[in-house]
Amino acid sequence: MSDVLQLTCDLISRVSVTPEDAGCQKLIADRLRGAGFKIESLRFGEVDNLWATHGSGGPVLVLLGHTDVVPSGPREAWFTNPFVPEVRDGVLYGRGAADMKGSVAGFVVALERFVAAHPDHKGTVALLLTSDEEGDAVDGVRRVADTFRERGQRIDWCITGEPSSKAKLGDLLRIGRRGTLSATLTVRGVQGHVAYPEKARNPIHQAMPALSELAAKCWDDGYETFPPTSLQISNIHAGTGANNVIPGELQVLFNLRYNPHWSAQKLEAECESVLRAHELEVSIHWHRGGEPFFTPEGPLRSAAREVLAKFAGEAPEESTGGGTSDARFIAPLGAQCIEVGPVNASIHKVDEHVSVADLEALPYLYLALIERLLD
Amino acid sequence: MSDVLQLTCDLISRVSVTPEDAGCQKLIADRLRGAGFKIESLRFGEVDNLWATHGSGGPVLVLLGHTDVVPSGPREAWFTNPFVPEVRDGVLYGRGAADMKGSVAGFVVALERFVAAHPDHKGTVALLLTSDEEGDAVDGVRRVADTFRERGQRIDWCITGEPSSKAKLGDLLRIGRRGTLSATLTVRGVQGHVAYPEKARNPIHQAMPALSELAAKCWDDGYETFPPTSLQISNIHAGTGANNVIPGELQVLFNLRYNPHWSAQKLEAECESVLRAHELEVSIHWHRGGEPFFTPEGPLRSAAREVLAKFAGEAPEESTGGGTSDARFIAPLGAQCIEVGPVNASIHKVDEHVSVADLEALPYLYLALIERLLD
Repeated sequence: MSDVLQLTCDLISRVSVTPEDAGCQKLIADRLRGAGFKIESLRFGEVDNLWATHGSGGPVLVLLGHTDVVPSGPREAWFTNPFVPEVRDGVLYGRGAADMKGSVAGFVVALERFVAAHPDHKGTVALLLTSDEEGDAVDGVRRVADTFRERGQRIDWCITGEPSSKAKLGDLLRIGRRGTLSATLTVRGVQGHVAYPEKARNPIHQAMPALSELAAKCWDDGYETFPPTSLQISNIHAGTGANNVIPGELQVLFNLRYNPHWSAQKLEAECESVLRAHELEVSIHWHRGGEPFFTPEGPLRSAAREVLAKFAGEAPEESTGGGTSDARFIAPLGAQCIEVGPVNASIHKVDEHVSVADLEALPYLYLALIERLLD
Repeated sequence: MSDVLQLTCDLISRVSVTPEDAGCQKLIADRLRGAGFKIESLRFGEVDNLWATHGSGGPVLVLLGHTDVVPSGPREAWFTNPFVPEVRDGVLYGRGAADMKGSVAGFVVALERFVAAHPDHKGTVALLLTSDEEGDAVDGVRRVADTFRERGQRIDWCITGEPSSKAKLGDLLRIGRRGTLSATLTVRGVQGHVAYPEKARNPIHQAMPALSELAAKCWDDGYETFPPTSLQISNIHAGTGANNVIPGELQVLFNLRYNPHWSAQKLEAECESVLRAHELEVSIHWHRGGEPFFTPEGPLRSAAREVLAKFAGEAPEESTGGGTSDARFIAPLGAQCIEVGPVNASIHKVDEHVSVADLEALPYLYLALIERLLD
């Protein structure tokens, strides 16, 4: 069994459902310490974070990943035990196989080979792992980035191992992400009996025209390689179950994914202006989940494009689509960020898997990237 | 302490939170049996119903009431214990004082006096009590009415003791009620991640224009003495709490209160046509809570008007406003129905109360009504 496959299996066996790390980082820290890395544990709240560095000064290249996984859901829904790694017909099954214990194992093997072959490489190569990427993402890379900011930790380049590939390994290079902004909206009315609507004020009835307007609004048509900015109402709740009571309050959660045409501040002002125009009695709480980032043409993108083309057989699509990743916290430190990882078709689903061939290619892929940047 | 005050206190002390009767009907049955009434207990499911009759043949006059009460809510919110009746400054406090243990006690005392003074009255005088008016209203008067229908039980007139008065006893005579129709609506979309709205179909976004149209619709401007037909959305729920997931389903409860211009069938067709026009993927479950009823001019209304005028000092307002009552189940048997009871300002609230003067007037008021109809 190859080194990267064995390490991936060892990580999958550790039930690190977010925000648990379940010993994954200790396993990795021990290996990298043995390879000459300086190891620092950054524990915030209930969350383990690992910062392992080799070399000194700039440029600083960080490999970024997470050891936590999303819950497996019911065991019966899987055809293997999600926490007992199993290879069938050249495919490794298990929770985290693709998102992203395979990439993390690929990072570790690549880093060991790189420092063995280039003990006196230029600058610093580092691994940053968290166990809070799939959960609240508060005590993970967000807090680590705060610490880096205080310390003046320089980061030039960051490669996140998120599963970015679509159909085959290396067919997509993530060069940015939209920002995410969430709102918790409370619309207040006046509770009453449905038989006396004139004595009540139904917050559902009052809010619907404003919510319809927000949902139908065209924010932009997309930007460079960015998809359009989009607002989605994810939760709406009012009423206690009784069918004869007009509720006194409506609770709404909505989320915006936005490209660099917008800032969180501008979006908040725009939404509040729509709500104000409808003369609703509201309170609104905003959560800025992450500003958008974009990595322009430069040494990181060109190195990645060349390496991926070698593995995929053709130049990768360069994309800013999809959700968010922890790169949103590293990019504001001034780092150029890209994301390169295995095929993402099975992530967050039952029977999550990665092909063994792709998994065994990952250390070579990451090693080629590190060598182009730091050799 | 007067007979009616004592009996009201005895009933309030019994914690008959819907659908519990807590011995109220037994207390009343024992008294009326002693006064010469024929007693029948009609228990359906968990619900006690009492049917007490005196005399035979027609006309048949039924006094209709309930022994159950709505929950008190937190004890601390009351300044007395809601289940320990207490008189302060000429006012009796306790859950059910106004809705409607006071009226029930008034019925019992009036019936005892009537049959004592008129042992050979014409027709039949009866008392019908349930313990399921404030709850589901399934195993209460609805089931009793089914039994009456099977037996061919004739009912000419029905006087419900619901608290109908606004500012002083007898200032309002209820001569009808709107119907009630409820819908449980499920709007189906396609679940997905908020970052990929193009791969999902948000049922909240899809439903809002249709729901806005239903909520804003003018059904009619009212009818005779009926208030306008009204639709109120009482509950709306979608989403699991996660802010990054577009939900797959939206659940909505709405309720219509409607006057005799409409039937449940016509309203259902109208709502479904609006939903269809918006091309929503929905399933809808209708619950017909009660058709509207209206008691036209006749001996019952004129008797009640004269009696109430004597108590209130002027002719009562004749109204069809407000919620529903168990009269909705008796009216379809062919009975003329009215509702006469104490002031309703405190019902379903903390510190529910009735003035002792009004309470002590109730037996005289009901006795006067019975005498005009059956003497």
